[in-house]
Amino acid sequence: MKEFQLIRQIQRETTVSFSTGSDSGVKLGIGDDAAVLELPAGQHLVAATDTLNAGIHFPIDTSAYDLGYKCLAVNLGDLAAMGAIPRWALLSLSLPEADPEWVRSFTAGFKSLAQVHGVTLVGGDTTSGPLSISLTALGFIEPGRQLTRSGARPGDLLVVSGTLGGAARALQLLLAGKPADERHLLDRPQPRVKLGQALPGYASACIDISDGLLADLGHVLEASGCGARVDIENLPQAASLAALEDEARWKCQLSGGDDYELLFCLPPDHKALLETWSQQLDIRLSIIGVLEEDEGIRCFSPDGSLFDTQRAGFEHFSHKA
Amino acid sequence: MKEFQLIRQIQRETTVSFSTGSDSGVKLGIGDDAAVLELPAGQHLVAATDTLNAGIHFPIDTSAYDLGYKCLAVNLGDLAAMGAIPRWALLSLSLPEADPEWVRSFTAGFKSLAQVHGVTLVGGDTTSGPLSISLTALGFIEPGRQLTRSGARPGDLLVVSGTLGGAARALQLLLAGKPADERHLLDRPQPRVKLGQALPGYASACIDISDGLLADLGHVLEASGCGARVDIENLPQAASLAALEDEARWKCQLSGGDDYELLFCLPPDHKALLETWSQQLDIRLSIIGVLEEDEGIRCFSPDGSLFDTQRAGFEHFSHKA
Repeated sequence: MKEFQLIRQIQRETTVSFSTGSDSGVKLGIGDDAAVLELPAGQHLVAATDTLNAGIHFPIDTSAYDLGYKCLAVNLGDLAAMGAIPRWALLSLSLPEADPEWVRSFTAGFKSLAQVHGVTLVGGDTTSGPLSISLTALGFIEPGRQLTRSGARPGDLLVVSGTLGGAARALQLLLAGKPADERHLLDRPQPRVKLGQALPGYASACIDISDGLLADLGHVLEASGCGARVDIENLPQAASLAALEDEARWKCQLSGGDDYELLFCLPPDHKALLETWSQQLDIRLSIIGVLEEDEGIRCFSPDGSLFDTQRAGFEHFSHKA
Repeated sequence: MKEFQLIRQIQRETTVSFSTGSDSGVKLGIGDDAAVLELPAGQHLVAATDTLNAGIHFPIDTSAYDLGYKCLAVNLGDLAAMGAIPRWALLSLSLPEADPEWVRSFTAGFKSLAQVHGVTLVGGDTTSGPLSISLTALGFIEPGRQLTRSGARPGDLLVVSGTLGGAARALQLLLAGKPADERHLLDRPQPRVKLGQALPGYASACIDISDGLLADLGHVLEASGCGARVDIENLPQAASLAALEDEARWKCQLSGGDDYELLFCLPPDHKALLETWSQQLDIRLSIIGVLEEDEGIRCFSPDGSLFDTQRAGFEHFSHKA
């Protein structure tokens, strides 16, 4: 592993088009023992880390370009769920072999998303090892404005962005050796950064859907100390789910992970904002349920009956897990 | 992989004794999508990431406790080399199996060092995968005070802390199936955090020795645009090297990695400070050479002759690599 050369390559290829400009806050970037960064005055730092391992978090045939994109996307999803403005990233890349072409493609994918959100790669390391990508994303937020998982209250509307289940369905198809028309939903999730920044001051809680709707809703409910009703017919569905039977479709929507959409709770007084945000940000926003006093999640079928997700074998990490 | 439970365990076990106190700057720690952190007013953020992979960066029989210690130590070494004050860490842990006992031991090792340096674990993730530990360390420094690799000038003294070669020798012995008396030098390197904080305003350049003296000196020389003379007889040696022949010993000292000592350049006017720092911090500081105009590294044997490290087969990443 020619680590130094690879680091230089990453440095060269990422700094061409989003350089350490005066407004990037980068005082010292890649190439020293650590990066030195200037936060905008009076802001709090927001930091998240997520790792993608080959064969566990992505199919082994995933392209280098998509991995470069996705490792940043999943972390920007975490910052979005806090309402933060992303700014910098540190990358740890473990590669089975030092392949400059692979790295070139990887950095191109990374850069394609980094440029959209004004993120500068400021450090990291490359090592030899099984393919694994660990990224730390850093951003900032005005003190006290962060969204958390813990502020939801009974009566709040439960809202989700975009569509659900597309990533899980694509993975199902790929694992079955079939072509997946919506593979981009798995490989190139869109972090909802702008939406996240619109929510502070209005939303009572927020999380990004990485583990699946039921699992992530469970985290919010546990942190907030309440329960929720979910109306299955109101769950937005990815186009590729249309051909599925009801339960198979619901499974993708309720427990498929990797969508990286935002799930947030909104006091009903602010309901009109949904239309505003949806138009301004060109994003679909669906009210999928409501928070309730009683702990636990109650999913209702389109016919109005209670649907037992646990008996149906859905992966359901209850808030008591 | 019961990820949620493991995260909770790590959260519980690391927060017992270094909680999110009022001076930790932690506004929101483990348990949300991202951490929210408050830097001391007017300070710049300093950020470093390093990954340890099983069998590559540590022998596979390394204890969980030592890995918990070491993953933090190597990153604190990077912050020390900048002169920064460490404050927070984010941890990505890939584990082949969810073993609560392993995690307990790992967090105990982490905590033992984190407490010494006032570091709070504020986030991260656990995933299933080959054993790999990626840590991001965050700290701060007064604007413009950071040490870099690029400020060294001809005439500056070349100084190293502690001893050299002990970690490499321990690894040699372990790989040969022999007991290593100084294995602690490999498994529990001491990050020179206090020394790093003493250097800004005096040292002209600094780096921590992770890849080996010649390699890391090469980085400084490349960034600074000069060369160096190294006097081998002045290299501090770990006790375990005493039994070795000259060249075997020199190899450990010159190109053995993993020492995590600080290598810094000091204008000769400040030479007297070495004695002060050494006494105040109870740390050995050795002048091992001097910076010169001519590019490249020239190593001199104790008999005064030039020693060709490349011909001797030493791993030598020249500053032109």
